Amino acid sequence: MASPKQSKKIKPPKGTRDLYPEDLLRQRYITNAWRDASIRCGFEEIAGPTFESTDLYAVKSGDGILNELFQTFSGKGGSETLDKLVEKGKADFALRPEFTPTLARMYAAHAKQLPKPCKWFTAGPYFRAERPQRGRLREFLQWNVDVIGVPSEEATPESKTQMDAEIIECAVRLFESLGLTNDSLSLQLSDREVMADYFVSLGISDDQLEIAFTLLDRKPKLAADTLQTLATDANLPEAFIAFLIADNTGPDLDASGLDSVCSVCSVVKIDPWITKDFTIARGLAYYTGTVFEAIADGERAVAGGGRYDNLIELFGGPPTPACGFGMGDVVLGNLLDDKALMPEGLELKEAVARPQASIRPQAFIVPNRESDNSEANEPLVHTLTANLRRGIESEQWLADENRKPWNKNRYALAPLHARISYKSTTKLNKLRDDAIKQHAKFFIIIDDENTAQLHNLDTKESLGPFSPDPTASKYIGSAIAETT
Amino acid sequence: MASPKQSKKIKPPKGTRDLYPEDLLRQRYITNAWRDASIRCGFEEIAGPTFESTDLYAVKSGDGILNELFQTFSGKGGSETLDKLVEKGKADFALRPEFTPTLARMYAAHAKQLPKPCKWFTAGPYFRAERPQRGRLREFLQWNVDVIGVPSEEATPESKTQMDAEIIECAVRLFESLGLTNDSLSLQLSDREVMADYFVSLGISDDQLEIAFTLLDRKPKLAADTLQTLATDANLPEAFIAFLIADNTGPDLDASGLDSVCSVCSVVKIDPWITKDFTIARGLAYYTGTVFEAIADGERAVAGGGRYDNLIELFGGPPTPACGFGMGDVVLGNLLDDKALMPEGLELKEAVARPQASIRPQAFIVPNRESDNSEANEPLVHTLTANLRRGIESEQWLADENRKPWNKNRYALAPLHARISYKSTTKLNKLRDDAIKQHAKFFIIIDDENTAQLHNLDTKESLGPFSPDPTASKYIGSAIAETT
Repeated sequence: MASPKQSKKIKPPKGTRDLYPEDLLRQRYITNAWRDASIRCGFEEIAGPTFESTDLYAVKSGDGILNELFQTFSGKGGSETLDKLVEKGKADFALRPEFTPTLARMYAAHAKQLPKPCKWFTAGPYFRAERPQRGRLREFLQWNVDVIGVPSEEATPESKTQMDAEIIECAVRLFESLGLTNDSLSLQLSDREVMADYFVSLGISDDQLEIAFTLLDRKPKLAADTLQTLATDANLPEAFIAFLIADNTGPDLDASGLDSVCSVCSVVKIDPWITKDFTIARGLAYYTGTVFEAIADGERAVAGGGRYDNLIELFGGPPTPACGFGMGDVVLGNLLDDKALMPEGLELKEAVARPQASIRPQAFIVPNRESDNSEANEPLVHTLTANLRRGIESEQWLADENRKPWNKNRYALAPLHARISYKSTTKLNKLRDDAIKQHAKFFIIIDDENTAQLHNLDTKESLGPFSPDPTASKYIGSAIAETT
Repeated sequence: MASPKQSKKIKPPKGTRDLYPEDLLRQRYITNAWRDASIRCGFEEIAGPTFESTDLYAVKSGDGILNELFQTFSGKGGSETLDKLVEKGKADFALRPEFTPTLARMYAAHAKQLPKPCKWFTAGPYFRAERPQRGRLREFLQWNVDVIGVPSEEATPESKTQMDAEIIECAVRLFESLGLTNDSLSLQLSDREVMADYFVSLGISDDQLEIAFTLLDRKPKLAADTLQTLATDANLPEAFIAFLIADNTGPDLDASGLDSVCSVCSVVKIDPWITKDFTIARGLAYYTGTVFEAIADGERAVAGGGRYDNLIELFGGPPTPACGFGMGDVVLGNLLDDKALMPEGLELKEAVARPQASIRPQAFIVPNRESDNSEANEPLVHTLTANLRRGIESEQWLADENRKPWNKNRYALAPLHARISYKSTTKLNKLRDDAIKQHAKFFIIIDDENTAQLHNLDTKESLGPFSPDPTASKYIGSAIAETT
């Protein structure tokens, strides 16, 4: 046993945190906001192990990832375990550096029985064996939000677009709830396929694509001449290098998929938050379509994600499209501090204890596809859903020059948990069954721009009709809020 | 990169859990109840790193603990790291198997600046390199509740007793909130000092004490003849072995400290939950006084803890008394399933989303020590505090034969966050300052058995006087609930 003198020197591991009560409440303020935004957008919480088989990470990234991981082994076997470890050159387990491999493993293990789509979120500790620096620790919390698996036979051609837009919407709902605005933060969207085509047009060969994306991803962290040297050493063509080191957001490429995502973003009124930026690469090799990063002045990326349609199959599941993002608590916390958007003292205590989002969906909103103007109903569904999810801010609060997101009188109508269906069926009964299965309180059918029917699934009573028009959303919201 | 076929075989590590949405909600039901019980009893949440220096665990338990740990190292150094690891015979870090060493390290690091006492709780993942079995996994959640450091100059002789009783009360408040009763669960109390004296009277020498406690702790898991052989091999005296293998709760030893704890437990009306049992040893070497376990039929210990007055000093802090307990989610979850006390489906969703405890203290209750009958006021403080913390169940709910803890109409008065002071000062202003510093809403002074003054610290208004008598607690509770 060590003497007290020796033990006095034991410090927390570098890059980890001791959170005393006030620190912990600050973190809870963030994790509560994460949970609330995901629940309101219809995502359900899951969790996986804190450590996984080392192989799980090597599948996706090769053994090169091993030196970025905290590796882990059971001490049970004593010195034999250590010998085996040296022989294999790695430990059996690793602390998770990210959630996506666990997510893919969990989905693949029960793909048949799981609902389609699965809209999942999780928040917990992650670990990276890197030198700690501002915005980057060795242990941090991360929020992951993913949608997986609309079966192709039930998906409309637009369903992938909807998935991408709903993932991006969830990130924006979080930012809004914390009082962040598009003045200080923007979501920069790109498309990996469009970029790959462009790279090829610049002379990049197929087997140079990975290094090309990796260098572009490292651009914000490297000086132009270092970048140029690395690219030249990799024999990348001149035209690509000129693009790589240019100080702009890249060419305005033709990207119809991305345009569709942007158009759904307009309907849900988050378009002021997004810009197209064809220099956003995302380092991870598994992205296959839309990619995005949330960028704030003076900080690292606050969040990043995109579409990864091949990963579920790589982990032994059926071919299944998927899209998601991750957001860490460290950069987000720094940003809230920078913008004076983190409450303190009594306000922090009150903000952390305020009511949570309803885990039961309060509204399940569908278009009537049998009506004459069924085309026009689809965007109305999105608009109403978005209005309920974001809540309606009070005029009193908006008029307050010193308004803070945690002020009690912020909302005239508090944000609600509202869900949509990705199914293209015209059968309202089928959609109603889904609403009941998900324990929704209200089933809302949009007949046309003047008529939304509200059915209380508990009492079988109907309310309304209301107008689903954006300006009338507050009547629907109030009607729901009053009965839940 | 592995082929999809290979990757198909990757499973979660043995003894860890994949939590799909329904599983996760069940776990949230438990962790929400943990948080609520601790907050209502005045504990504040903290958190530490998921992994610590391996030495932190060896300080307390010696290197013998290494083979019970998941050891961890940064993969950054490649094969050099592995060589160093073999040379040292252990990794630099270990996944935490328990919280107490981190707590002691955190307290010792800032002992001077921290409030006295610190009442802290935490809930998070812990790891043990053991064979998984019912009630025991390799990764599990644990709730820790601790009170540390009443400075001796301000502590009454009874303050240690109060600390012990408040720790035990917090465990009972949790059990009550989940619908568990003392029919199915009991808290068995012992005292390590009293037991040590008894062991010595049976012929145990000082250096045999540790093995004696270890064997007693293993008693429930071992057959009597195995136990006898182990004790004989360790040369323990016959009289001790007879006590060790006896099928009863031990002799009725004279334990005045424990009697005082039991007497405070009576005042806060948790006495039906507790029994004295001088066969409860607790395996961990650091306990110094009261120890206890919560035992349910057919399950492992649901919780265990006690007093550890030397540990803060061992970790380099000033000599500071402390007391606490830990409770895992696995055994507790099994017990709730056994007793049909875990909600399902819609009820589970509603139970998980129900309002959380106020992080702001709603009441800060002190005795008027300047009054004539000041002695009698001390127990009235405890009674009122306990009544507010536990809430008052509605007659309608109590009359319901199929009552479940998550039923909406459970409480006539919902449980409140109520705090007391361990200080012995007669100066009410000093106590009021503490209440203000802790952001309490109401400061409640008990003048005598007929008079409790309620001061709203926000508005400076006074309510009452009320009677603090147990049967009148609901009027005080209602008055507080109406204004918060």
